[in-house]
Amino acid sequence: MQSQRLRTLATDIFTAAGATPENAEGVVSSLIDANLVGHDSHGVIRIPHYVKEIQEGFLDARAKPVVSRETATVAVVDGARTFGQVGSRFAADVAIGKARGAGLSLAVLMNSHHTGRIGEWVERIAAAGMVGMATTSGPNGPYQVAPFGGARGALSTNPMAWAVPRAEGHPPILLDYATSAVAQGKLQVARAKKEAVPPGAIINAAGEPTTDVEEFFAGGLLLPFAGHKGYALGVMVELLSVGLSGGETVSGKGRAGCLQVLAIDPGALRPREEFTAYVERLAARLKAIPPAPGFSEVLLPGEPEARTRQTRQRDGIPVPDATWAAIETTAKGLGVAVGAAA
Amino acid sequence: MQSQRLRTLATDIFTAAGATPENAEGVVSSLIDANLVGHDSHGVIRIPHYVKEIQEGFLDARAKPVVSRETATVAVVDGARTFGQVGSRFAADVAIGKARGAGLSLAVLMNSHHTGRIGEWVERIAAAGMVGMATTSGPNGPYQVAPFGGARGALSTNPMAWAVPRAEGHPPILLDYATSAVAQGKLQVARAKKEAVPPGAIINAAGEPTTDVEEFFAGGLLLPFAGHKGYALGVMVELLSVGLSGGETVSGKGRAGCLQVLAIDPGALRPREEFTAYVERLAARLKAIPPAPGFSEVLLPGEPEARTRQTRQRDGIPVPDATWAAIETTAKGLGVAVGAAA
Repeated sequence: MQSQRLRTLATDIFTAAGATPENAEGVVSSLIDANLVGHDSHGVIRIPHYVKEIQEGFLDARAKPVVSRETATVAVVDGARTFGQVGSRFAADVAIGKARGAGLSLAVLMNSHHTGRIGEWVERIAAAGMVGMATTSGPNGPYQVAPFGGARGALSTNPMAWAVPRAEGHPPILLDYATSAVAQGKLQVARAKKEAVPPGAIINAAGEPTTDVEEFFAGGLLLPFAGHKGYALGVMVELLSVGLSGGETVSGKGRAGCLQVLAIDPGALRPREEFTAYVERLAARLKAIPPAPGFSEVLLPGEPEARTRQTRQRDGIPVPDATWAAIETTAKGLGVAVGAAA
Repeated sequence: MQSQRLRTLATDIFTAAGATPENAEGVVSSLIDANLVGHDSHGVIRIPHYVKEIQEGFLDARAKPVVSRETATVAVVDGARTFGQVGSRFAADVAIGKARGAGLSLAVLMNSHHTGRIGEWVERIAAAGMVGMATTSGPNGPYQVAPFGGARGALSTNPMAWAVPRAEGHPPILLDYATSAVAQGKLQVARAKKEAVPPGAIINAAGEPTTDVEEFFAGGLLLPFAGHKGYALGVMVELLSVGLSGGETVSGKGRAGCLQVLAIDPGALRPREEFTAYVERLAARLKAIPPAPGFSEVLLPGEPEARTRQTRQRDGIPVPDATWAAIETTAKGLGVAVGAAA
């Protein structure tokens, strides 16, 4: 489906659900962008759930994020329980503005709905010529990830993202992943296909390692990626996101999601053109490595997303029938006209 | 062996090799501290090599690190080719001082010898009440780590460390690990014991996965931990350490190691006691999780190191015979008196 058509429909849906034009545009551009880079779990598949959350009063589609505390280098943003993408973009822009003046800055967002694909916020910082780092977590569970060596959940999937700008015309070097071994979305796919889960990804309700996806859905848990290494990173993600923002102090309705974004201006440390020349030399060094058996080439971090974006901008976004049907049902419930799927 | 005895001998050795008292004390305290927390690969085992590097002119035992560029929030430190531990401690202290004023800060060190156990620099930041992050890398290989999907080396083991302060009386929550699947030191142990290496840790000279440690020593390479996830993190570590510092522009004698340290004062974002209370709630939540089968308890990141420190402060540091013999040879070569091993 062409992204423009999805964009129009999604905007109509959120507007009908009560969003301001600015908020509708803000959340829809992020959902479409997630689909464009291939992170479909953070794309338009979320529309029905977000609308339900608006209707149930967990998401305020008309609110605006505001800076609640700031200095020259740091800011705390109150996400006002509106779309997390709107609050996150606002926080990233605050961080970019402050880093332009101060060389580096850190902004945290609290009291937010789902913060979306956090790779978007570090790409935004990289597009401003800076190094970006982002983490996101929630303070109130339910916790799907067991700590290393544990038999109960105590962490969320706690993703981390980094981006570093390259020379003009190149997408940034980008890292964007959960600190759990797999995303829950992938387990749903494995269940549908009746496939085994890779070892080290899940435990059953007794805390024992398993590759049987049905054991996950019968009270099992996700494991951190790479054992104690991913566990430690997941703990740091929560400490940065929830700990620095104070998001755990928010109570009442709302998901209280928390985000942390850091922006570093390389130009504060050395001439920017020298930094960029170094990044290009590193990229060239990595790309020159011959592939190992079974691989066709060495990819830079972020290259898979950049290639998917090129393909999908040209060919459109594949929307599975079930996703489309759910969006259509949501649209009809709001009295929004839907054409036939292209 | 009691750490005080090792400390005295090591200080005598470096002083005899030409180090200033200040530099000898600085490097020795780091080596002993690495042994105390159980990271023996970064402890006194390094003494003979460092002395050789001094004698060959790669390490300037009398030099002092200096700030070569700075603003209110960032600093570039020239490590002056002296002990990396001396330069790294200096850079961490510059970062701490700037973060006290500005809320957060970033210092980079270039032109440095081996930066030691980088966990020490983030523990130092945490001891000052702040969140610390550190990365280290070198710009000039030889590269022992293959990029994900690659058959030749293009990265170093590129470690990353984070520390978050806890309430008074508790060691910090600490993450400190390489972005390679295993350290080369562990492969030497596996070789000595004729043991297999875990799958996913090394490839042979043809780029094929193997568990035979002899294939590593016959031209093989380390793999990043956790496939593309560890690879992406390793790339970010080099971009932060070498890219931001400009360390790749240094030529001539010297190892040109690079370090990056970030310090964040939580008190700039929210009342410090609230932050600490949150950290303790998270620690309690993790410790309350029942262990999975095969584990005796859930550990906080950094708890293994803290326990080893307690044990070794009480019982002394175990020094393998081969390590002791090499240190003894180095001491004798410098005319330093060595008593019998205790």
